Amino acid sequence: MEVISTHTNGSVITITTNGHHNNGKSDHRNDGTTHDNGNKLLLGNSNSIKPGWFSEFSALWPGEAFSVKIEKLLFQGKSDYQDVMLFESATYGKVLTLDGAIQHTENGGFPYTEMIVHLPLGSIPNPKKVLIIGGGIGFTLFEVLRYSTIEKIDIVEIDDVVVDVSRKFFPYLAANFNDPRVTLVLGDGAAFVKAAQAGYYDAIIVDSSDPIGPAKDLFERPFFEAVAKALRPGGVVCTQAESIWLHMHIIKQIIANCRQVFKGSVHYAWTTVPTYPTGVIGYMLCSTEGPEVDFKNPVNPIDKDTTHVKSKLEPLKFYNTDIHKAAFVLPSFARSLIES
Amino acid sequence: MEVISTHTNGSVITITTNGHHNNGKSDHRNDGTTHDNGNKLLLGNSNSIKPGWFSEFSALWPGEAFSVKIEKLLFQGKSDYQDVMLFESATYGKVLTLDGAIQHTENGGFPYTEMIVHLPLGSIPNPKKVLIIGGGIGFTLFEVLRYSTIEKIDIVEIDDVVVDVSRKFFPYLAANFNDPRVTLVLGDGAAFVKAAQAGYYDAIIVDSSDPIGPAKDLFERPFFEAVAKALRPGGVVCTQAESIWLHMHIIKQIIANCRQVFKGSVHYAWTTVPTYPTGVIGYMLCSTEGPEVDFKNPVNPIDKDTTHVKSKLEPLKFYNTDIHKAAFVLPSFARSLIES
Repeated sequence: MEVISTHTNGSVITITTNGHHNNGKSDHRNDGTTHDNGNKLLLGNSNSIKPGWFSEFSALWPGEAFSVKIEKLLFQGKSDYQDVMLFESATYGKVLTLDGAIQHTENGGFPYTEMIVHLPLGSIPNPKKVLIIGGGIGFTLFEVLRYSTIEKIDIVEIDDVVVDVSRKFFPYLAANFNDPRVTLVLGDGAAFVKAAQAGYYDAIIVDSSDPIGPAKDLFERPFFEAVAKALRPGGVVCTQAESIWLHMHIIKQIIANCRQVFKGSVHYAWTTVPTYPTGVIGYMLCSTEGPEVDFKNPVNPIDKDTTHVKSKLEPLKFYNTDIHKAAFVLPSFARSLIES
Repeated sequence: MEVISTHTNGSVITITTNGHHNNGKSDHRNDGTTHDNGNKLLLGNSNSIKPGWFSEFSALWPGEAFSVKIEKLLFQGKSDYQDVMLFESATYGKVLTLDGAIQHTENGGFPYTEMIVHLPLGSIPNPKKVLIIGGGIGFTLFEVLRYSTIEKIDIVEIDDVVVDVSRKFFPYLAANFNDPRVTLVLGDGAAFVKAAQAGYYDAIIVDSSDPIGPAKDLFERPFFEAVAKALRPGGVVCTQAESIWLHMHIIKQIIANCRQVFKGSVHYAWTTVPTYPTGVIGYMLCSTEGPEVDFKNPVNPIDKDTTHVKSKLEPLKFYNTDIHKAAFVLPSFARSLIES
């Protein structure tokens, strides 16, 4: 299929410049701070740990930085939205960074991807229509396609450079853009959701962005209201929702917004990702009013599915039904803050 | 009470030089690699991320490094066993490093400490006699003292400099060394266990060391045999057991050794620690033959205890009964490797 900028239900999507919806969890570091590792890294600037290493500094996690050794720089460029870099690392395979922040590592990023997909899709029977916001490399799409019931996936990525990187360096992922069930839209995800047909999707996966800077509105009430409207009754959304170690104040605000909008259920889950700051990432899981969704007890155990054997897909590496349930168990300090 | 070098059951403990048993999870970086952050950090050597930052390089996690910003250096010295450094960090409070590896951070280390204590002690009724190997700063001891049933705690720390740092910078922890139930031994933990009275302890907590270099034998069969002998029937041991992201081959070996020695039950658990490499750490939990220990279903829910209210102890920040149970839930890749 071809990349289009028009939604199949007729809504015209235009590419905007507000920087929303790239692959992974952040395009959002346009927050006034300098994130120039990407451009200056190989020049040995003071922001890299030492020559040949990538260091992840950000105002979002002041006072700490994760660094990985670069084996080979594969791509470095500036898109209309952000700095995009891909390098082969010494121990984590290919590493994608946007505006100097790690979005995905081949050998360490799979918990994030498996959980952001299977926490929501494992919680509803027979997912058929799914919207992915962000995820232009294709990791998220890859996981959604494990479900044999899928009929339609819209994936909305704002940055065509990210998709180009996928086509060049992750052809096994980009191949899924050609799946007849898949429509890849290059455009703004928030606008896309707002224009979507009411009640259309079984699930929406928001694979992008921290709630500061240009992506701020993705975590605010109008966006969540558009998401709720685009979901069928008893439909589910999963959004990236930060680290309990770094951003509890943001998490509390997201939860407060979601509780106002989603009349089914609202839960916070988390998992470990070795290559994200503080080693963890959270998710908001919400459902609309309608058939009850019990997120803590998945009805759709993909880990017990043997489809991957037939289709030659690799089995899941991280997710299983017990991990799904455990993702909702919070440490005491987080539980008391989140449930208060 | 005074610090002694003689065990109360009469075994003489001598201070050895093999470097075992300091506070925290590693004294073990004497593995042939250079770990000189401690000494050269403030001189701006190439191993620090930039001036005023501490960077944690190690052959144990090649190709990656975690860095924290230093606000103030509090202590730096070389003991008979290792480089010891304590600094005030920008965001994690006081940070203790040994041989260039982070052992504890005040604001990020508590999951490690709470779990290494309450996973074993929460799994048995009425813990009375406990041995701590390592833990000379006193975090582990602090948590053990939450149990009102405690009658006797032996804590064996090899490095008197670590204890000195505790007395100077963590007086609220060092105060517990004076508790009449506590005996602080400056000496080698492996030798201490070997000489301990058979069947004496309800629980042994091994708060130290990776299984390479001088601490290698702490993860091998003779040490585990000495631990099993020192435990009562149905007694429990909890040892630090590495990251599933970094050291699965080591974990498999520890488990194989424990399965040979401990005839009650043998389990691997894990938790998140934001200031440890890859953001997680694991524990081996084993019991000796005798009254059954069901580690996955704690019988001693300290999180529901209100003793801390009466004693003015701060409540637990991380551990609760649900977190205890979830600690045994493993990602698919780890489960298949560990259970095979």
